[in-house]
Amino acid sequence: MPNQIKRIGMLTGGGDCPGLNAVIRAITRAALSGGMEVVGIEDGYLGLIQNRMRGLSWTDVSNLLTQGGTILGASNRANPSAYLVPENGTWVAKDVRDEVMRHVQKQRLDALVVIGGDGTMAGAAQMMERGCCIVGVPKTIDNDLWGTDITFGHDTAVHIATEALDRVHTTASSHHRVMVVELMGRYSGWIALNAGCAAGADIILIPEIPFSFDKVAERCLERSKFGSRFTIVAVGEGAKPAGGQQLVERIDPSSPDPIRLGGVGKFVATEIEARTGLESRAIVLGHVQRGGTPTARDRLLATAFGFHAFELLEQRRFGRLVVEREGKISSLDIKDVAGKVRTVPTDDLMVRAVRATGSSFGD
Amino acid sequence: MPNQIKRIGMLTGGGDCPGLNAVIRAITRAALSGGMEVVGIEDGYLGLIQNRMRGLSWTDVSNLLTQGGTILGASNRANPSAYLVPENGTWVAKDVRDEVMRHVQKQRLDALVVIGGDGTMAGAAQMMERGCCIVGVPKTIDNDLWGTDITFGHDTAVHIATEALDRVHTTASSHHRVMVVELMGRYSGWIALNAGCAAGADIILIPEIPFSFDKVAERCLERSKFGSRFTIVAVGEGAKPAGGQQLVERIDPSSPDPIRLGGVGKFVATEIEARTGLESRAIVLGHVQRGGTPTARDRLLATAFGFHAFELLEQRRFGRLVVEREGKISSLDIKDVAGKVRTVPTDDLMVRAVRATGSSFGD
Amino acid sequence: MPNQIKRIGMLTGGGDCPGLNAVIRAITRAALSGGMEVVGIEDGYLGLIQNRMRGLSWTDVSNLLTQGGTILGASNRANPSAYLVPENGTWVAKDVRDEVMRHVQKQRLDALVVIGGDGTMAGAAQMMERGCCIVGVPKTIDNDLWGTDITFGHDTAVHIATEALDRVHTTASSHHRVMVVELMGRYSGWIALNAGCAAGADIILIPEIPFSFDKVAERCLERSKFGSRFTIVAVGEGAKPAGGQQLVERIDPSSPDPIRLGGVGKFVATEIEARTGLESRAIVLGHVQRGGTPTARDRLLATAFGFHAFELLEQRRFGRLVVEREGKISSLDIKDVAGKVRTVPTDDLMVRAVRATGSSFGD
Amino acid sequence: MPNQIKRIGMLTGGGDCPGLNAVIRAITRAALSGGMEVVGIEDGYLGLIQNRMRGLSWTDVSNLLTQGGTILGASNRANPSAYLVPENGTWVAKDVRDEVMRHVQKQRLDALVVIGGDGTMAGAAQMMERGCCIVGVPKTIDNDLWGTDITFGHDTAVHIATEALDRVHTTASSHHRVMVVELMGRYSGWIALNAGCAAGADIILIPEIPFSFDKVAERCLERSKFGSRFTIVAVGEGAKPAGGQQLVERIDPSSPDPIRLGGVGKFVATEIEARTGLESRAIVLGHVQRGGTPTARDRLLATAFGFHAFELLEQRRFGRLVVEREGKISSLDIKDVAGKVRTVPTDDLMVRAVRATGSSFGD
Repeated sequence: MPNQIKRIGMLTGGGDCPGLNAVIRAITRAALSGGMEVVGIEDGYLGLIQNRMRGLSWTDVSNLLTQGGTILGASNRANPSAYLVPENGTWVAKDVRDEVMRHVQKQRLDALVVIGGDGTMAGAAQMMERGCCIVGVPKTIDNDLWGTDITFGHDTAVHIATEALDRVHTTASSHHRVMVVELMGRYSGWIALNAGCAAGADIILIPEIPFSFDKVAERCLERSKFGSRFTIVAVGEGAKPAGGQQLVERIDPSSPDPIRLGGVGKFVATEIEARTGLESRAIVLGHVQRGGTPTARDRLLATAFGFHAFELLEQRRFGRLVVEREGKISSLDIKDVAGKVRTVPTDDLMVRAVRATGSSFGD
Repeated sequence: MPNQIKRIGMLTGGGDCPGLNAVIRAITRAALSGGMEVVGIEDGYLGLIQNRMRGLSWTDVSNLLTQGGTILGASNRANPSAYLVPENGTWVAKDVRDEVMRHVQKQRLDALVVIGGDGTMAGAAQMMERGCCIVGVPKTIDNDLWGTDITFGHDTAVHIATEALDRVHTTASSHHRVMVVELMGRYSGWIALNAGCAAGADIILIPEIPFSFDKVAERCLERSKFGSRFTIVAVGEGAKPAGGQQLVERIDPSSPDPIRLGGVGKFVATEIEARTGLESRAIVLGHVQRGGTPTARDRLLATAFGFHAFELLEQRRFGRLVVEREGKISSLDIKDVAGKVRTVPTDDLMVRAVRATGSSFGD
Repeated sequence: MPNQIKRIGMLTGGGDCPGLNAVIRAITRAALSGGMEVVGIEDGYLGLIQNRMRGLSWTDVSNLLTQGGTILGASNRANPSAYLVPENGTWVAKDVRDEVMRHVQKQRLDALVVIGGDGTMAGAAQMMERGCCIVGVPKTIDNDLWGTDITFGHDTAVHIATEALDRVHTTASSHHRVMVVELMGRYSGWIALNAGCAAGADIILIPEIPFSFDKVAERCLERSKFGSRFTIVAVGEGAKPAGGQQLVERIDPSSPDPIRLGGVGKFVATEIEARTGLESRAIVLGHVQRGGTPTARDRLLATAFGFHAFELLEQRRFGRLVVEREGKISSLDIKDVAGKVRTVPTDDLMVRAVRATGSSFGD
Repeated sequence: MPNQIKRIGMLTGGGDCPGLNAVIRAITRAALSGGMEVVGIEDGYLGLIQNRMRGLSWTDVSNLLTQGGTILGASNRANPSAYLVPENGTWVAKDVRDEVMRHVQKQRLDALVVIGGDGTMAGAAQMMERGCCIVGVPKTIDNDLWGTDITFGHDTAVHIATEALDRVHTTASSHHRVMVVELMGRYSGWIALNAGCAAGADIILIPEIPFSFDKVAERCLERSKFGSRFTIVAVGEGAKPAGGQQLVERIDPSSPDPIRLGGVGKFVATEIEARTGLESRAIVLGHVQRGGTPTARDRLLATAFGFHAFELLEQRRFGRLVVEREGKISSLDIKDVAGKVRTVPTDDLMVRAVRATGSSFGD
């Protein structure tokens, strides 16, 4: 372990997330101010494996706060302990960690800052087994990383999703429709819960609360009966009906061939229309939620996370992951976090608030 | 024909369009100031058929400029000359224009302002045959109404589409992907052309210029070769490959059953990935493009259109449709416009500008 | 004290704050769902004094989430214990609390929800002395209420301020100028700190850290020397130079008369230009920061605060103020909070992060 | 005059304007595609005088559409025919056009594209007298250049101003205030007219229509009487009272010293409060209106203007200024445009629409 950090490497792994560049900027500027050299590793672990790195200067991290994406590039396909290489006409997973450590040493990197999600942190833990000094910064727009109350990127995703819900609201209301908006969140419903609540969605479907198509349809009809001839449904992509009903079994009855409908959003819209006769439309917001300029709040959170990563480097507290808990920036052991998902507690205050203010989880 | 207009009715037909409320506000305020009474007809022609109308006051049209949708409600399902009524267990189209005229007379409406698209104007022309005095205001986010250079709602749609393209741009660039964004425009490519050009899309596919999958794939590879490891594709929903290739034939090869993929966007993304090996994703922006707060420009255009509709009423110039031509608000004969679509001329300045600045139409 | 709350009154006091309507909506919907009746009191304490109240139904609180302002109206001029009434040609402060209590009883209000800032809570404490059952919800865009880590409205203010800083950034950079943007915050620098950090302001001046004009000018020149021919300065309106220099003494030397310059922003710009010769401009963002549609986050926080106020009512925990502490919604004794301001701790993580990433507080 | 354009120079002059980079991008890409070399001249005429230029490649103009400002830098202080140089302790204006022409020849620039406002075009006309081949692209957020119906940057300015008016609207309405928002436009009222109309301002004051304080105050009181206890006033910075009243004479009566109040916005607010007793506040939006990301429409217009400038170069039509007239991109003689301002015609359709829909010009 180095006595003093003189030179650090930094990489971003996994999918896009607004605020990545703000983290890179904060770490780079703090490290340069603190007398360290900073090396940017290209395309996540891929750049580490392929030895693609470049020095980062003050100029390189100028004007980054408003910029989406990551100037380092990212990839979610490479893992140093199971790197896919072609061999005899097929792909074989190889452990290339020793080779990676040689690149790290050759580049004289005293420590790495690894910014990424669950998979990237699993890779970090494996690199640590080879003696690599690592500080982790969590990244997920889904906000479902165990151990931290909030992650940067989530506020931007909720902001974009809320804007979309606001927009379809007026159409639904004027044109007397059921509008189903599918939002990101495969394993947790934070985006759908938060955006649904912020936009006043009438029904919010999330993975944590299995829903009933009967209840969903009933609520639409009920609203219709009391004069609101429209309903807004926010659906997390991982939402599932209770009782294990398979969404993929649903086919379009008007088609000559058995045709699988799209994701859960399309599915829900089709079921509502079939059960209620109300005109229903589905929108899948998709990747729009994870790109572009971060909100002010995400820039702040990313800056705070980046700065604390620098503090951990300075204090040589390796193997730590920056988190926010109970309103304070702190850190956890990277290994404690691996593979754990933070789902929405069904007695969460926002869940209770949504129910109390008249919206339904379809349960 | 009335000597002086004392009382007018107003309805909005067809799909949602940002600026409808601004038109309603401008007409109502101008008419009330001019000493007329104003009656709002609910849900387009449906309200006219079912005699659902209510008076509109200054207060009713307060705070409307920022509000999407239409306070009158809209429907695109009713047509006075072919109104579907149940008869002996089936639906029969009836001509209810005489009944509608009785409602008009009973409500003492000297004239109607009809705000809507192609279908709504066709209905207006048919009502005029029964002696109904009508002034029309065109409505289409697609901007493809023949006879007018621009319609309100289009700028908002382009604004929303451009923002979405800007957001996916950063993801595409960081994560080295081909991002295909499907935009509205079944018969014309104005939204895809304008948003694609405003956001600097690398490839823009529109109905007016049939594209070649080979050319599209070639461009993606070419960009990749010269260091830009990403491509942004803006596709109008009505875009078609040259040579009449049917998009619906494409099936997902990884599926056990023959499964039709989604719209043209999904199709294009799948083809690009198949032909180039580049990771490709499709986004269908959908109804988000037609709802919510209008841009400042759309509020202005809608106000100008509404005000000129009032001027036409005052001058008893019935049967006219408000348009903007050569930078000026004027009007055309409603009947001249029916059934004609304004497509993108392939030698349009923006088309040439897009080509000259290095983007491709895939042709 | 009532055994069970059957009917509640609600008022909003003080200046405008994005999220007020979301609080009103959450309380009203939760209370109606919980079987209570809800009465809206108009224009803060003024409506209580003048007995101007009206029932609130589900319809009254529809479509409120996107709407800025407060549907109840607000006033920051009335205080039940010192209400100004005209008497013999002058204004006399009268204690009208007994009269107010008669209105409360006549309207059969079992409890009041009072939404407002420091002054409004002082009034609430005084009403409680007369036996009024009150639950408080804090409101300040400045985020400087002691006892709560965050208040709704602040995120929106920071969002708007950040957008303005982003916009002037491009002008400053192209046109080689010093741009000084004065932001709200008379007693605390939270808006300037957060927006300044989010937008990457080069210099951030806040009341908590007295600044030196020499240091500020030095930093501008330093940037200029190293090739950045522009500087962005974010100034909280309460920022002051060290050593107690009075800003108001500064006069425009080019004017024949002694003319006081505007607020601190104008002052700072003038001093920078005088000391450095660099072209400097001041912008005072003003009331734009406190109006309009709240951010998604503020809608969520306001909903959570409103819902918890309802929970406190249900539990008959009167005299409590809803707060967020350590990442959790809870409550404090209203009286404990009165007159205390939460300022930015000078060793706050964001303060340290700003310094570490190369920005200056001018100290 | 060159037979064929092989190499061009490009500069941006005057104040900031959203869309400048889009023009630079369009010209550079079209010229490079057309086989020309492109040289960027730094800081307007200053770079021409000081011979500060650099080649522009495809990479230099990447990602420019969303970026405010100008990558070339700009200055509005230099004029080749009257360049200020220090001489014997004072500043003397020198004609340096011959020197500039030597730089142009040395850099082998066959032609220049000059992007700027009135002053920049006057400079262009003077350079043309020395044989310089120039194509002009107009730039003004005020939209007051004679000869063109619209200029890029204006839509963005109106968009920002409208958003600000929307925000203060909610505060004015909740808190029963008169809110006066001062907008840019020294010689013409286009921004105030368009933003005021788009946001539904109750009173719009523009230079072209001298206003009466009595009429303005009367309208505020009238609104108050009919239940609208607030008024929104949009004021162009060049608006003036009828009868030549000098705004600068007004002093703050509550001050011991004669103190000049701020611009027209502050002045109008003070007068309204003095005459009506209604609480009034002024906001000066300032430079926020001219910076930052352009709207989609401005990116399109700037691209069209830039592309047509390239077409004029190709056709060797020098001395032309790109304009949009009657809905079409075309060009005029640069000399015809000099010194002429396009003001709002008092019988403009929007002026009539504003009056008809119940807003006032204070006349």
